[in-house]
Amino acid sequence: MTTLSISRRSSSLNAFFTKMSPSVTILPPNTYSYYSTKSFSNPKPRKHNLNFKPAGQLTIGDLNENVLKAKYAVRGKIPTRAEELKRQLAEKPNSLPFDKIINANIGNPQQLQQQPLSFYRQVLSLLQYPTLLHAIETKPGSSAVYKKDAILRAKKILKDIGGSVGAYSESQGVYGIRRTVANFITERDGGEPAYPEDIFLTAGASAAVNYLLSILCKGEKTGVLIPIPQYPLYTATLALNNSHALPYFLDEMNGWSINPIEIENVIKKAVQDNIKPDVLVVINPGNPTGAVLSKEAIVSILEIAAKYGIVVIADEVYQENIFDGMKFHSVKGVLRRLQREIPGKFDNVQLASLHSTSKGVSGECGQRGGYMEIIGFTHEVRQVILKLASISLCPVVTGQALVDLMVSPPKRGEESFALDQAQRKTIHSQLSQRAELLWKTFNSLDGIECQKPNGAMYLFPKLNLPYRAIQEAQRLELSPDEFYCKELLEHTGICTVPGSGFGQVAGTYHLRTTFLAPGIEWIDSWKQFHIEFMEKYNS
Amino acid sequence: MTTLSISRRSSSLNAFFTKMSPSVTILPPNTYSYYSTKSFSNPKPRKHNLNFKPAGQLTIGDLNENVLKAKYAVRGKIPTRAEELKRQLAEKPNSLPFDKIINANIGNPQQLQQQPLSFYRQVLSLLQYPTLLHAIETKPGSSAVYKKDAILRAKKILKDIGGSVGAYSESQGVYGIRRTVANFITERDGGEPAYPEDIFLTAGASAAVNYLLSILCKGEKTGVLIPIPQYPLYTATLALNNSHALPYFLDEMNGWSINPIEIENVIKKAVQDNIKPDVLVVINPGNPTGAVLSKEAIVSILEIAAKYGIVVIADEVYQENIFDGMKFHSVKGVLRRLQREIPGKFDNVQLASLHSTSKGVSGECGQRGGYMEIIGFTHEVRQVILKLASISLCPVVTGQALVDLMVSPPKRGEESFALDQAQRKTIHSQLSQRAELLWKTFNSLDGIECQKPNGAMYLFPKLNLPYRAIQEAQRLELSPDEFYCKELLEHTGICTVPGSGFGQVAGTYHLRTTFLAPGIEWIDSWKQFHIEFMEKYNS
Repeated sequence: MTTLSISRRSSSLNAFFTKMSPSVTILPPNTYSYYSTKSFSNPKPRKHNLNFKPAGQLTIGDLNENVLKAKYAVRGKIPTRAEELKRQLAEKPNSLPFDKIINANIGNPQQLQQQPLSFYRQVLSLLQYPTLLHAIETKPGSSAVYKKDAILRAKKILKDIGGSVGAYSESQGVYGIRRTVANFITERDGGEPAYPEDIFLTAGASAAVNYLLSILCKGEKTGVLIPIPQYPLYTATLALNNSHALPYFLDEMNGWSINPIEIENVIKKAVQDNIKPDVLVVINPGNPTGAVLSKEAIVSILEIAAKYGIVVIADEVYQENIFDGMKFHSVKGVLRRLQREIPGKFDNVQLASLHSTSKGVSGECGQRGGYMEIIGFTHEVRQVILKLASISLCPVVTGQALVDLMVSPPKRGEESFALDQAQRKTIHSQLSQRAELLWKTFNSLDGIECQKPNGAMYLFPKLNLPYRAIQEAQRLELSPDEFYCKELLEHTGICTVPGSGFGQVAGTYHLRTTFLAPGIEWIDSWKQFHIEFMEKYNS
Repeated sequence: MTTLSISRRSSSLNAFFTKMSPSVTILPPNTYSYYSTKSFSNPKPRKHNLNFKPAGQLTIGDLNENVLKAKYAVRGKIPTRAEELKRQLAEKPNSLPFDKIINANIGNPQQLQQQPLSFYRQVLSLLQYPTLLHAIETKPGSSAVYKKDAILRAKKILKDIGGSVGAYSESQGVYGIRRTVANFITERDGGEPAYPEDIFLTAGASAAVNYLLSILCKGEKTGVLIPIPQYPLYTATLALNNSHALPYFLDEMNGWSINPIEIENVIKKAVQDNIKPDVLVVINPGNPTGAVLSKEAIVSILEIAAKYGIVVIADEVYQENIFDGMKFHSVKGVLRRLQREIPGKFDNVQLASLHSTSKGVSGECGQRGGYMEIIGFTHEVRQVILKLASISLCPVVTGQALVDLMVSPPKRGEESFALDQAQRKTIHSQLSQRAELLWKTFNSLDGIECQKPNGAMYLFPKLNLPYRAIQEAQRLELSPDEFYCKELLEHTGICTVPGSGFGQVAGTYHLRTTFLAPGIEWIDSWKQFHIEFMEKYNS
């Protein structure tokens, strides 16, 4: 082996730490007292010494316990088994009782043939390759596929972002896009104003949840109220932050409604146990429940937030997924009206409202676009949120652009309007029809019952499993709902997520399914499976 | 106000926690003993009670201390002031002694007019709007701007990702793209094989650092060796994870080389202090130093890793930014050769090697593409890494596609080859010429000296500041390097980052500047400023 260049070093780590600018010092001063006593001014060649005993690899026990504790069932055991079966089908197409996997475990519309909206994709392709704008302008023959409003929007966004989607933007997101979002919110909330300064663009809503809980959780003394059943991102992120989930139950028999008295009791109990209930999460429309909160329910949540000084995280990513006859009320809109109508009581309420390009009729999960609106926080707290965002530099810029498109789709009179409306209507009606069919199918069967879905992308039916099925599950060391989901997968290729991944009242069993998969044959095969499963374990 | 629907609830939280599946339970069983004793089976309307005293807002003291501690100077005080000046210029164009801000604080090439490579953007635009593929095939007039190999590549990637960039991919990243990455690594490392199973696609290298340190840091008992000066993402992420930075100094006078003896001493001292040195970070080529590690230096790092069982994080995002006459050696390539040549000693070395689409000649920062290659870890540890990735679902799919393009650019004989080569050569030569000019300028001046850069995008010159300048800085409660950077900004519009943001030997002062800004006028204006600054404080 060869020689090394040895560096001279006369200063000490100790001096480094006592004098280094506080902007990078993490260790307290004087934690280290190591002094380099040797002078390296005449470095001598150093031989490599291979006489060491190699150390072992890391084991699980060497890792961060919080990460080990975190669970995320949406990509857990059943979906992992589905991936194995998918590979088996690719290698041996006729080796299973079905010919494809139906991924009903995750809200991923474009994996299941939902088409993207043309207007979005026209603009995004122009942003990726602005040379096209020139080609379109100079070669009339090539303009056929692009609509005028798409070209105009691309130019507007290119101007907002400074010319290229390849440059980092401001960490909070492109200002011009935040302005578009603020306009959207103002209109959505019947004129209650929103401001670009309150908007943070994020890589999907997951990134927003991650930021917020990282900042608000102080470890073992912090409690976060989450609905049960919940989207498991919340418990996973709480585990990562070593803070407490404070579950409040939704009432299945009343369409998964909330009970404010129970929420207050959970808060009081937490305080007694010396846990500070700092945050309350609402998911509206509900994931996995599909329920839509009434205005009155939102008022009661805001009363609790105001009374106890609890931050509200309103996960409103399914706000576009509302079925006919229902109305979405944003927490922000209700809060602003309360602030005006009942002066003084609600002024300190702190709210983060989340939205995403992944859901709605956009379904652009892979593009990682989203935003959060932050209101009621002090300037200092907002600066901390901004600092944390700055450490990951910026959300993907094309995802930011997609947020602009989502909140400001083509308007009446613009060239893309008719096609865009038609595409939206098709997606919306297919989703609600399939939700209805699946819901009716469940309720036509013995051993399964399901609340009527009012929004979102999921059904969360209750499984009334035969005693012998529960026994069989125990024998296999599975929870009963996991057993049902596994059997469903192995017999039909339909991949769902057991209710235990979301939380459920003890002794009850559920599963979550999306209604995104095209066609209705899979619903028939599920029905067939269910009847046979019940017969087998009831007899 | 109106009535509320009150939910029935007869089960207890306690029962919930003792019986709920372990997959979502975070709290230990029986942490809560709350029992809901009321029966809500006949709910009565509840009046809103506004008789409460509103609680206050959160203060900084209510937030996670680890987040408060984290600092990220690249978007810190000086860049924040630059943003203010930028706004002032937009509002009052002639109110300052310069007409624009030169953002030399951050490696963001496309913000500074570096053009994206055409091949990348052709493919990405096709991925965003696959209808173009059809239009190109059916309308010959419109094919002018697209090259055949770009079309073929777009089709290959669309197949790999399952048809749409709008669908979530596997959390580890698209398999076909990971295969392309593995092929690239194999070729880069002279045939030492790489495997798609070892590749994780990430949203830039920042996301990879975040995953790895989240998993490997167990809090106060964990130490992570970082070079000083360092890229402040590392200290920031360590602060977020409440773990120790164990600084090892680079030797400025020897071209910022590493000293393995010092590294071992830091390790021994940490162990004495009951801190486990679990990870060692190398940044090669160096940020902010621009140094390139010799093969011998890498061998010495791997010896240390093997001997002490320390995970190596090799931040190799500047591997394409190598100036003429230098050679990049990957840590992975050197490790594989050691493993073959000296059997038994290096088999347990655990390495994560990071790359990004943000740097090199790609400069696609805003697209958030990157990968990490993970080798030497046990199956169980790899599963934990995958689980953490799954919680944020997947990296942006267009960023993944860009990784495919970066590691597999057009080849000789393909239609895009000539233009692609020309574009690369232009970017590369502009960068190295500007680096050289800036370096020579610094060394022609009194009071500033700079090591010759061999790679990356930065110079990290040393400021030998007059005593009176240091006094003036103290009077203003600034560190001396911060004072210099602030004066530079206010007089010329050039935005840099003080050395204190990266770490430096006590009593020395530096700054980091990129050499990305186009033109050379700004270098002249810096020279002028520096001469006047020195005159002012030397007189």
